[in-house]
Amino acid sequence: MPAAPFNPALAGAAASPIMTAQGWLRGRTFPDDRPLINLSQAAPLGPPPLALREAMARAALSEGAAHLYGPVPGDDALRAEIASRWSALYAAPVDAAEVAVTSGCNEGFAAAILSLAGAGDEVILPNPWYFNHKMWLDMIGAKAVPLSVGEDCLPDPAAARALITPRTRAIALVTPNNPTGAEYPPALLDAFFDLAAEAGLALVVDETYRDYLGPEGPPHRLFQHHGWRDTLIQLYSFSKAYRLTGHRVGALVAGPARQGQIEKFLDTVTICPSRIGQIAALEGLRTQSAFVAAQAAEFLARRQVLEAEFAHGVGAWRLLGAGAYFAWVAHPFEMAAEDVAKELVTRQSLLALPGTMFAPPGDAAAGRTLRLAFANVDRDGIRETARRLRMFAP
Amino acid sequence: MPAAPFNPALAGAAASPIMTAQGWLRGRTFPDDRPLINLSQAAPLGPPPLALREAMARAALSEGAAHLYGPVPGDDALRAEIASRWSALYAAPVDAAEVAVTSGCNEGFAAAILSLAGAGDEVILPNPWYFNHKMWLDMIGAKAVPLSVGEDCLPDPAAARALITPRTRAIALVTPNNPTGAEYPPALLDAFFDLAAEAGLALVVDETYRDYLGPEGPPHRLFQHHGWRDTLIQLYSFSKAYRLTGHRVGALVAGPARQGQIEKFLDTVTICPSRIGQIAALEGLRTQSAFVAAQAAEFLARRQVLEAEFAHGVGAWRLLGAGAYFAWVAHPFEMAAEDVAKELVTRQSLLALPGTMFAPPGDAAAGRTLRLAFANVDRDGIRETARRLRMFAP
Repeated sequence: MPAAPFNPALAGAAASPIMTAQGWLRGRTFPDDRPLINLSQAAPLGPPPLALREAMARAALSEGAAHLYGPVPGDDALRAEIASRWSALYAAPVDAAEVAVTSGCNEGFAAAILSLAGAGDEVILPNPWYFNHKMWLDMIGAKAVPLSVGEDCLPDPAAARALITPRTRAIALVTPNNPTGAEYPPALLDAFFDLAAEAGLALVVDETYRDYLGPEGPPHRLFQHHGWRDTLIQLYSFSKAYRLTGHRVGALVAGPARQGQIEKFLDTVTICPSRIGQIAALEGLRTQSAFVAAQAAEFLARRQVLEAEFAHGVGAWRLLGAGAYFAWVAHPFEMAAEDVAKELVTRQSLLALPGTMFAPPGDAAAGRTLRLAFANVDRDGIRETARRLRMFAP
Repeated sequence: MPAAPFNPALAGAAASPIMTAQGWLRGRTFPDDRPLINLSQAAPLGPPPLALREAMARAALSEGAAHLYGPVPGDDALRAEIASRWSALYAAPVDAAEVAVTSGCNEGFAAAILSLAGAGDEVILPNPWYFNHKMWLDMIGAKAVPLSVGEDCLPDPAAARALITPRTRAIALVTPNNPTGAEYPPALLDAFFDLAAEAGLALVVDETYRDYLGPEGPPHRLFQHHGWRDTLIQLYSFSKAYRLTGHRVGALVAGPARQGQIEKFLDTVTICPSRIGQIAALEGLRTQSAFVAAQAAEFLARRQVLEAEFAHGVGAWRLLGAGAYFAWVAHPFEMAAEDVAKELVTRQSLLALPGTMFAPPGDAAAGRTLRLAFANVDRDGIRETARRLRMFAP
């Protein structure tokens, strides 16, 4: 009997790099004097603040509604709180009706893209990209059009303009960037907004790492643009700042017409986000700004240690970008990045993802780079990472 | 400036009928002597058993891992428990590696279908269908091919065979059925399995309402078929039996090759299911068989009251199907089902969904039917529903 078929679009999508890299650790042990430093994933390792855990426990025990379906676009109170916080942060009015809560930021991206593009359509992504963005485009049969960034890790609006075709539906940016850590300056984001608006495209901006921005002030002015509701789709994650990865809560801000379409996607795929997760996210927004700020300060300090190490010199390695959770480094070897990454595990007990996991197959620049997710490594660990990179000779 | 485009496939998908129907209640009040009886939705209204609430609260307070990303296809312990329970129930070995935990059963359906079909492909669905299944096919640009059921609410394999084209990728069944309540006999499911296997299609079987099957014994023999891993994708929901709608936990059973593709979808869309929800589902499987059985007995008793009322006579209304949460009834009026449904709200304080919400536009049979989600209405309420239907004259 013939086996049931596979959709070639999904079959052609890459497997998750995180799992591939974790496979490199399988069956391995590391010496006591050189334990593993895991720079592969961008996720908190500790639990959320006590107030959030208590809010979840209370809800689980005694809030009947916490166990029932909630509204498809999220709980009213959380949407209102997001709208009010965003309005203050971005100095521009965002209405609760313009907010949808999603089952994590990945689902927000999936919903945003499917509201714009189907099979055969194109979405411009800066290269290197966040692998799940590329995977989603692949599996729905859309095309990720790579916009190569410069050595400063920033994409160029003029280069993006040259990539627009009649099938282009959106430009999707991540800032602070995954994988490079680059923080896109507000003026650069304005230029991308103008380009998208002029060309009738959407500008999707994923701000999963927003809370770890280096400089003070609003991350961007995009919500201040007249007509943002026709162009902008902004994404956020509660996973990182509030340590809620296991609860799957994100947010998507867009104009009301777009939200009407997004809601159909959310209803069909997950019906509603976890109610308990939403309760924790609301508690986080209401009470944890000091916690978030302290965490951001610590990550910034780690980044500064990393930058100081590279300023001092880390062999012939070069630091191309650093911000939020990530650094993007160039290795000096005549080897493919994936082989460098595997050798780093073997010889230096360092797990980092090769740049090739964030780029189209055969991309030469990616073959010279690695991503270091440094946020989970303390300052001594970062110094030790630099020491091991210096000693590394494949 | 031109607004960003909409994907016509998503824009062309219908909005959720549940929300449309809830809109009919907006701004209304109902008389004290004839309060609303809501027969519109198929979801528990009460909280999960105390043991599950306590397990969630404990995990929230003191299990650090409950807040972190878990494995993409679900927690090992839950997958193993599902595999072991399924092996016993279906009298056939199911391995933990053949189980994925999903963020609700809808996500399981979305993953299953995208692993099979893309834009332009076809999936055969019995008509009437579960609306979110149709919506998912619409939004990915695939085509739902309606297989009209008989007055007994059962689909006919020979009729399905006649609908197969070179673009057909799967046949998707729901048993016990939403919306009709029909329980598909094991021999009918075998016939569909044989048809799918012979034609090289997948057979997707959504058993969300499995725990409310009337007869004793295994729901079907599909896992006993040699080669089921090449053909069958089975879906389950923890929402109904364990009252976990707000936590989004479902399961998808398929062969290992299929699971490899499913995992890419799950990783990209939701990364992992809610950890707390999974902890509750595991507790439910381990400790709540008596609770599930008592609930099933109560729903069966409600169904028997409903069947007795119709046997006795409910005006010229006819009962076409009844099972699990749902009854499927034919109205006797020269009116569209949607108008009947709206009039039932106004004149009899009854909210039920018209058959047209579960069928292709213009479907004549659907225009004569309504779905009554009776599981949340107690026996007196069901007698009162029958009384109001008798009195109803539009």
